[in-house]
Amino acid sequence: MRFMKGSCSSSALLVTDRVNRRYFSGVDIGEGFLFVADEKVYFTDGRYFLALKDKLAGSGVKAALYRSEEDLKEYIDRTGIKTLYVDYSTVTVEEYKKYKTFGVKIKNARPYIDRKRSVKSKEEIGFIKRSCEIVLKAYYDTLPEIKEGVTERELKNVFEKKCADLGAEAMAFDTIVAFGENSAVPHHETGDTKLKNNSAVLIDAGTLYKGYASDLTRTAFFGEPDEKFLKVYDAVLKANILAEENIRAGTTCKVADGIARAHLEKAGYKDNFTHSLGHGVGLEIHEFPYLSPRREDKLKNGNVFTVEPGAYFGEEFGVRIEDTVLLKGGKVERLFDDDKKPIIIK
Amino acid sequence: MRFMKGSCSSSALLVTDRVNRRYFSGVDIGEGFLFVADEKVYFTDGRYFLALKDKLAGSGVKAALYRSEEDLKEYIDRTGIKTLYVDYSTVTVEEYKKYKTFGVKIKNARPYIDRKRSVKSKEEIGFIKRSCEIVLKAYYDTLPEIKEGVTERELKNVFEKKCADLGAEAMAFDTIVAFGENSAVPHHETGDTKLKNNSAVLIDAGTLYKGYASDLTRTAFFGEPDEKFLKVYDAVLKANILAEENIRAGTTCKVADGIARAHLEKAGYKDNFTHSLGHGVGLEIHEFPYLSPRREDKLKNGNVFTVEPGAYFGEEFGVRIEDTVLLKGGKVERLFDDDKKPIIIK
Repeated sequence: MRFMKGSCSSSALLVTDRVNRRYFSGVDIGEGFLFVADEKVYFTDGRYFLALKDKLAGSGVKAALYRSEEDLKEYIDRTGIKTLYVDYSTVTVEEYKKYKTFGVKIKNARPYIDRKRSVKSKEEIGFIKRSCEIVLKAYYDTLPEIKEGVTERELKNVFEKKCADLGAEAMAFDTIVAFGENSAVPHHETGDTKLKNNSAVLIDAGTLYKGYASDLTRTAFFGEPDEKFLKVYDAVLKANILAEENIRAGTTCKVADGIARAHLEKAGYKDNFTHSLGHGVGLEIHEFPYLSPRREDKLKNGNVFTVEPGAYFGEEFGVRIEDTVLLKGGKVERLFDDDKKPIIIK
Repeated sequence: MRFMKGSCSSSALLVTDRVNRRYFSGVDIGEGFLFVADEKVYFTDGRYFLALKDKLAGSGVKAALYRSEEDLKEYIDRTGIKTLYVDYSTVTVEEYKKYKTFGVKIKNARPYIDRKRSVKSKEEIGFIKRSCEIVLKAYYDTLPEIKEGVTERELKNVFEKKCADLGAEAMAFDTIVAFGENSAVPHHETGDTKLKNNSAVLIDAGTLYKGYASDLTRTAFFGEPDEKFLKVYDAVLKANILAEENIRAGTTCKVADGIARAHLEKAGYKDNFTHSLGHGVGLEIHEFPYLSPRREDKLKNGNVFTVEPGAYFGEEFGVRIEDTVLLKGGKVERLFDDDKKPIIIK
């Protein structure tokens, strides 16, 4: 029994968290445990059992009734599982200690899950593409609503309504709308700030489509931008484009990040790019791989990730330009179709 | 250094999950680590640091900047912490392994946290009471909308809008609206079923007020109930009232559950009461104590919990009557002010 190349025989993957249960079974349900080995068996309790059975029909995944921990132990004993792979990044110490009592060897499944989930299937890419189209169109449809006096929250509401109307299931995370100096805070909490003339307007948002996320940031300007804003915008955009043009299958995350970082350093904004270049996107808005100066993982065809350089100037403004992209045929394919030139409103 | 009676000196509590960080600091923030010992120190990263400092002003809790794990290790070394209590039910194996490298002894804080959080302060009780008032009033205000042809989802939307208008911050969980045979599924997912004449109408919902939850279930009947429905309703209501009248400070969870269960057994519904009697309510909708046949914990003054017997008849209907109550002066005090008599509509 092997669930992955190189795992010991008699080993199985026990998937406990909701996102990974969905990934490995194709079905999203509130509670349960999914065993992945020669067969896939999905345990859930009486509340969800009938719904699960229904949803799994024809999928090849078996539904099983979970009444107590004894059912897991009994399954492990019956199928002869000797090594159980669980995800150390989601399994709690309490759960781990319980599995220990089952008399199996326990190993960390996270590296395997990360690698597997990071290479997207054609179907997954289709869902992410649709999610990207929705969020980009909603963004451009929202631009006419950027007017003096509108609040961040009002603009957020208009924007999210457009996403829903375009077919988004939900937002992938709490939309950031940041006016003026608020745009200098990378994780600004959208509030009641009113838009004043001559302010940056940063929107960072993503939608979910069939469970899959998109992630977009654009920084527009309301009024007449001064030279500094335009210079910073230009540097951030070049960093974004340089990274997208030069990342290849096989580039390490560290090197990918370095492409954008080197350009911003050269432009004099070394200390203003305060986060890493990007992160994987899929069923989760932040997932493996992480395009950070500290990660040596190599990017692969099928990876979907963000490229989001930024430069932040406390009490003045910030600029971030973020795309969601796909690595395909060795090179970056953009999932947003726009030229990213600075948008000046009014 | 002691954070609780009976903990070793040189011990500290490290709180990592969001709910408990909120509980022990009074502040709700997306990310961070809170140390509780002689002093309370709340670490968070650059994204949240200024907001945290602001929110903690005057609270006695110190804000500290988190840059990397080294900051935690350095704090532990500097303050001489020898034993670190962490919550095994939320800390992951990955985190646990990281703390292990800090050279401290690690113990499970969960039993301490459960006991502490289960005894509510006057302020917490005030918030829960308000949350209970909101959800009960919204329920009664929604009754006129129960009409032939309305869907579960439509009724849910009307109800949740009323909760928001009455001051609820959010719903505490996804509202269950179940018509007819759907009411026989304790965790029914609200859907597009239309209301037909002669159907049970079960609503299970809770709101949040200042972060604190309420939990209410009522089962009405649309049309002319038959004898079976009325008989079952009567038995469930008696089980509910018997439990509320007889639970005392010092009653074990098992005995509390048994009061309601014995009555339903006597009425002939032994196999139809398929879940446990109730659960604690507070910052979380399900928290310690659990009023289950398998729990020996003793109920205490200050505990807030649900009393929710039910009886379910597959393909016919189900009845559940759920109150949120407070244990005060040794006895149960009801936080919902209604007589729970069967509501027959039309």
